Amino acid sequence: VTIASVDPRHGRAVQDVARATTAQELDAVCAGAAAAAAALGGMDRGARAHLLGVMADSLEDGRDALIGLADRETALGPSRLHAELTRTCYQLRFFADVLDEGSYLEAAIDHAGDTPMGARPDLRRMLRPLGVVAVFGASNFPFAFSVPGGDTASALAAGCPVIVKVHEAHPATSVAAHAALAAGAAAGAPDSAVSLVFGQDSATALVRHPVVSAVGFTGSLSTGRMLAEIASSRPTPIPFYGELGALNAVVVCPDAARRRSAEIAAGLVTSYTLGVGQFCTKPGLVLVPAGTAGADLLAALAERVAAAQPGAMLSDRTVAGYASRSSELQTLPGVRRLATAPPPGAAGGYWATPQLLTAEPDALRGILTEECFGPLVVAVQYRSADELTRLISRLRGALTGTVHATAADHDAAQLVVDQLVETVGRVVWNGYPTGVAVTWAMHDGGPYPATTDPLHTSVGAAAIRRWLRPISYQNVPEELLPVELRDGDAPVPRRINGDLVLAGSPPGTPPPAS
Amino acid sequence: VTIASVDPRHGRAVQDVARATTAQELDAVCAGAAAAAAALGGMDRGARAHLLGVMADSLEDGRDALIGLADRETALGPSRLHAELTRTCYQLRFFADVLDEGSYLEAAIDHAGDTPMGARPDLRRMLRPLGVVAVFGASNFPFAFSVPGGDTASALAAGCPVIVKVHEAHPATSVAAHAALAAGAAAGAPDSAVSLVFGQDSATALVRHPVVSAVGFTGSLSTGRMLAEIASSRPTPIPFYGELGALNAVVVCPDAARRRSAEIAAGLVTSYTLGVGQFCTKPGLVLVPAGTAGADLLAALAERVAAAQPGAMLSDRTVAGYASRSSELQTLPGVRRLATAPPPGAAGGYWATPQLLTAEPDALRGILTEECFGPLVVAVQYRSADELTRLISRLRGALTGTVHATAADHDAAQLVVDQLVETVGRVVWNGYPTGVAVTWAMHDGGPYPATTDPLHTSVGAAAIRRWLRPISYQNVPEELLPVELRDGDAPVPRRINGDLVLAGSPPGTPPPAS
Repeated sequence: VTIASVDPRHGRAVQDVARATTAQELDAVCAGAAAAAAALGGMDRGARAHLLGVMADSLEDGRDALIGLADRETALGPSRLHAELTRTCYQLRFFADVLDEGSYLEAAIDHAGDTPMGARPDLRRMLRPLGVVAVFGASNFPFAFSVPGGDTASALAAGCPVIVKVHEAHPATSVAAHAALAAGAAAGAPDSAVSLVFGQDSATALVRHPVVSAVGFTGSLSTGRMLAEIASSRPTPIPFYGELGALNAVVVCPDAARRRSAEIAAGLVTSYTLGVGQFCTKPGLVLVPAGTAGADLLAALAERVAAAQPGAMLSDRTVAGYASRSSELQTLPGVRRLATAPPPGAAGGYWATPQLLTAEPDALRGILTEECFGPLVVAVQYRSADELTRLISRLRGALTGTVHATAADHDAAQLVVDQLVETVGRVVWNGYPTGVAVTWAMHDGGPYPATTDPLHTSVGAAAIRRWLRPISYQNVPEELLPVELRDGDAPVPRRINGDLVLAGSPPGTPPPAS
Repeated sequence: VTIASVDPRHGRAVQDVARATTAQELDAVCAGAAAAAAALGGMDRGARAHLLGVMADSLEDGRDALIGLADRETALGPSRLHAELTRTCYQLRFFADVLDEGSYLEAAIDHAGDTPMGARPDLRRMLRPLGVVAVFGASNFPFAFSVPGGDTASALAAGCPVIVKVHEAHPATSVAAHAALAAGAAAGAPDSAVSLVFGQDSATALVRHPVVSAVGFTGSLSTGRMLAEIASSRPTPIPFYGELGALNAVVVCPDAARRRSAEIAAGLVTSYTLGVGQFCTKPGLVLVPAGTAGADLLAALAERVAAAQPGAMLSDRTVAGYASRSSELQTLPGVRRLATAPPPGAAGGYWATPQLLTAEPDALRGILTEECFGPLVVAVQYRSADELTRLISRLRGALTGTVHATAADHDAAQLVVDQLVETVGRVVWNGYPTGVAVTWAMHDGGPYPATTDPLHTSVGAAAIRRWLRPISYQNVPEELLPVELRDGDAPVPRRINGDLVLAGSPPGTPPPAS
């Protein structure tokens, strides 16, 4: 089976990139990754941080060629792709900072002593790499959530070799990005720190492979759930972190609708049509008040949508899924199409047009509460605060929930926030959910079906936690301990006998009186 | 179906404690717990800490009656049970300290600003309660891993109501302990903060119930794996934390065997016969050198075992499992019984006698690498450092791995430690794995089959992490944020713009130069 690079703007293969990985080749890739695990885990934090920086530099060096390939394969446009590559390089360097800082190790030392439950031994705990990580590249982010993306960066930072299942939507970009990362070998990384596999059969075989210790996945609910069940039914079950997308409701409170309808309409249409609606965090539902203010907002939305541009989606499957789901939604009772962008001028390719649907409150059930991947948003008008509460209570787990409110909306907004926090991973205030900053305080996750594991994030510093497991050392002599757990000045932030001690502090320094 | 309290010393029911929970009753219990979630999660940290202290006090008040019931139901003896109750009360108070300290929230604030990947919004992250937690009480710890145990304490600390599936080995103790915890209602906890269910059918129904958000389980591999698969195949999969026991190998290096054989024999027999061998951390395999030193150690072990006492195991199932597995092991080629304790004097009851088996190195495969729950240890003599490496490489994931070594064993011990850290959760040096201290640096976990989730611990401060999920707030106004995320002096340790800031510090204070 040949893996071809297809141009979504006309839908034809322009390059054969690879063959599907055979079972024997997969075994060899896994053996190489297993061999790399000890070397990568054995590098000190500084060396791994250096490696991540070298990888970022190497991606930057190849920027123009990478953008060219990615644009040809994804039709996402140079501007977006430049920003995504910048983000990807920043993300690699950010995890280098996370390594240097060292809190991620959760180092803790309890010296031997008496406690109310009796004598305790000397105990020292920190996190260590889990092993080989399988990463499933996402269709919609050829850099930031694919070969050189967040799962790879965080896993390498943790000390785990990575095997990426290349997404068929951008194989040429993936091969080129992999070549750029391989520059890491010059920075002391083992050869198989990052490997690639191709083809659908290798996807399930990879999750089943005994060498693989954990899986990072960004993609659809159906594929993610299928792979998650394989991971949990293996002879040795392994953690599976699926980021599966979401409905990402936007709630507009009454006064905000009254005062800012034009601004909200503009922002929402920009957000939901960004990248042809192919974001996990795309807002797919907007709840607006009934009455004049809501009607004005819908009219402003409809006007913006009618003026929006068609775009080529990532693959034949993606555009077919969008066409099918958007048609199905419009057959539901109480649902109608309020506006649509003009059809594409060119024939052929994976073109799709932005759409705005409205639904009666009672219709908000079933597939209307599920993600529709593509440039479509559903607007529902709520007639009272109680109805708004009922509508929100029908929503499932989501990556985000957004509130637009003014000072006059305070009480209503408080209720909405209190309700949203129960089911979302990120609450956005007077903004839009697309755009996921790479920072310490970011959480890109949420209750199922947004993810398969609500405890973890795929973006931000905490993403590294997915690839680490704790270990404790009991009475183990100093020279056999990892350097971060030896006595002396703290090389990283540590908890010593219960007290948090900042890096550089002498051991046992009490925290300042609080 | 009646749930009876049975005395293991004679094997007869002495009291009917409860009926098996019906499906309708389970629904009602779950509804009560769901209603308690908002109240419990809404209590501030200080109030939940106070609640845990009140619960500990209440258990202390009922100490004598609780010990009497538990001894009658488990035959573990007053001395061990007093120590276990002390530990259980300490554990509740320890989680009160964890709440007061507040690091567990992982609070982080990133102020809005420019970054190399562009402008970022104000982002604030912390952890929040996951929801209703199902806890499966363990047979072998009627207090510390049952109704008032570590899963319950850590879940309540997190703000999650708990529904305990009572273990049939100690229903009367469970009901009495639950009554003591209910004193928490007087301390402001909602009525259904902790509830009980009974019977095998309620076990699977509880894991399947839509209200349940996570499961804590301590018990056997077979039951744990079965319930884990139910948890992951639900319409909404939920996290399942199973602590399933382990082989817990002990490696004796050559010089340690030479110099300390009597001491090691005494310590090992005490450890593996403790509580009639019914510990998840029981050492089940000892690797000793071939030759004189190893032979001396085996002789010393045999002598101790021959003088050991029989004990009553927890239930008919437990003793039948021990009898069956210990017989099966002795039918394997290369395995023989080296010593056994005298049989019990009394007829009837669930009595079992400590046994010491030896196995040829080549025999160390299959069920010899699995846990045998009960007072049995298998000794294998290794003939070289290479053979020791090969033997350790056949071991599966374990809660612990122990090394006995002297200074002269340094190089060999280094190799053993390097190998053990790959597959165990805790490395014990010149000690014994039974006895799991409740501290910040404890890790009671490990790779499968020791647990179903290698990232988490069932003992120690980090156990609370299992019941929490992150959420981020983007540009949300101060008054709608949790107090821990508001500007001003840090109420808990926080990460502000990437820098760790200790509690009590003004916002933005840089850490001391390091």
